[in-house]
Amino acid sequence: MKESKNQIDILLVGTGAVGSYFGGKLAQTTARVSALCRSDFDVVKSKGIKIESYKGDFDFKPAETVNNAQDYTGQPDYIMVCLKALPEVNLAEIIRPVMGADTAIVLVQNGIEIEAGIAKAFPKNEIISAIAFIAVSRIELGVARHTGSGMINLGNYPNGISPKTKKLADLFTEAEVPCKTFENIAASRWRKMIWNASFNPISVLGGGADSKQMVETPESVKLVRDIMNEVAAIAKSTGNEVPEEEIEKAITGNRKMRPFKTSMLVDYEAGRPMEIDAILGNAITIAKKNGIPTPYMESLYSLLKLHEVTQLS
Amino acid sequence: MKESKNQIDILLVGTGAVGSYFGGKLAQTTARVSALCRSDFDVVKSKGIKIESYKGDFDFKPAETVNNAQDYTGQPDYIMVCLKALPEVNLAEIIRPVMGADTAIVLVQNGIEIEAGIAKAFPKNEIISAIAFIAVSRIELGVARHTGSGMINLGNYPNGISPKTKKLADLFTEAEVPCKTFENIAASRWRKMIWNASFNPISVLGGGADSKQMVETPESVKLVRDIMNEVAAIAKSTGNEVPEEEIEKAITGNRKMRPFKTSMLVDYEAGRPMEIDAILGNAITIAKKNGIPTPYMESLYSLLKLHEVTQLS
Repeated sequence: MKESKNQIDILLVGTGAVGSYFGGKLAQTTARVSALCRSDFDVVKSKGIKIESYKGDFDFKPAETVNNAQDYTGQPDYIMVCLKALPEVNLAEIIRPVMGADTAIVLVQNGIEIEAGIAKAFPKNEIISAIAFIAVSRIELGVARHTGSGMINLGNYPNGISPKTKKLADLFTEAEVPCKTFENIAASRWRKMIWNASFNPISVLGGGADSKQMVETPESVKLVRDIMNEVAAIAKSTGNEVPEEEIEKAITGNRKMRPFKTSMLVDYEAGRPMEIDAILGNAITIAKKNGIPTPYMESLYSLLKLHEVTQLS
Repeated sequence: MKESKNQIDILLVGTGAVGSYFGGKLAQTTARVSALCRSDFDVVKSKGIKIESYKGDFDFKPAETVNNAQDYTGQPDYIMVCLKALPEVNLAEIIRPVMGADTAIVLVQNGIEIEAGIAKAFPKNEIISAIAFIAVSRIELGVARHTGSGMINLGNYPNGISPKTKKLADLFTEAEVPCKTFENIAASRWRKMIWNASFNPISVLGGGADSKQMVETPESVKLVRDIMNEVAAIAKSTGNEVPEEEIEKAITGNRKMRPFKTSMLVDYEAGRPMEIDAILGNAITIAKKNGIPTPYMESLYSLLKLHEVTQLS
């Protein structure tokens, strides 16, 4: 039996840009927030993380900084995962040493069907699916720059809103992070996919296009819209309607915002693996099962998979 | 009235890799072959062109080397155009100064519907449409390297085989260049499009994929086949059937050949404009007119057009 405790214990896994921001925000509340780092372990351990935010800079000094879960001395109520959703990352293996009976796994990740694997690995633990809306990038190890938005949506996987999810939402609210909870978080995930499945791949495949360039030429806008329509059709086939105006809103949104690089483009330019399956592959698989044609998404998917080959050569 | 003459006069326009090879071959016959050069004028004027061929090296010393048509002293029976088919190249303007009543224009160019513009500019002159099958690249100004094949197909635009076309075919044969003539050259052009419309764009958009990498991963082979099927459907809608086995032959062919870079990839890597419309845009326009869906080709077209934007930024 673990001792009862009042303070909520959160272990952040992954201190990239998104993890640094939301972890740093939660650390300003009554919660105890620690960090499991990889490449940035030394920097974070010695100096913590600096977040340069357009809403005001702040520092994030984790309660504990570890580079593997075995070293963690706390008992996490939440493990908040802010790693990219990549097939080569064995998340279950990373977090297994600190998993308790009551530990909830919070997945702050892009894409679709990214929860299934971890839910299967820990069938008795709560999975909280989280979708972040934020423009933030890591400019060097230990420093993140936050330039826009900063909201988060929560809901249990596959559905529902548990007391633990409500409590986490309260913490985000305490941290002044706009946070909504959803009975059906998948619908929110599909809505974000409208943006992710189009702009992320096109930015890479269009030769390093920024968010504005992709909505400038008629050919590119056509492709963006074709992809978004396919995503909406797949979402609908799973019972999650994406309102049609979301498509125009996404395009207009990019026109209005200051140009920025998508996360996939940032990964690509850094020679890091891209979230090809989370952002395209899984959705195409669902489309196939449900009989939805997706030639535009498949074209981008094939080209990105070819990049995996040419990146190595 | 120009004097009657026995020697056939050919003015080659464009001494890139393809022009160097076929021009150089024709120069070994009884014909008088001259060259209109651009970036390589100084080199070709002083040293001629060296062709390093897997079938034996040879030199091409043009009878006249000029850098604009006004300077040309001959009266060309044939103007053989080996320039890329790009919208920004005003071919009519380049060759107008040397066009005679009997001058035939030979277009050795990739793509579809590339003859229409020049046929309109010179409605009384013969247009000979030529399709080259050759692996050749310019390794420096004045030096071309020939690594595979070396055939050429000829036919009049829009159709037929004129005496002038026959005579040119005889010259190629004299030069030991395998040459066939076609009553309906468009069919041959569509056959080559199977290869061009797929491998050229995919090589660029796949991150610089060589001919072999494109037929290695299942995703890439799928995309190649999807594009080829679309091209075949468009061809069919214009009355030009492409035999189905051509598709498998093209894929198998790439698997067997030594890996090489497509011409579009070579252009892209050199920062030169790509033949996007000749190779994709024109065919998509025909598809639209004939009610053929082309989502895969449109995806690649949109991405290549976006490259035109990002290449400049």
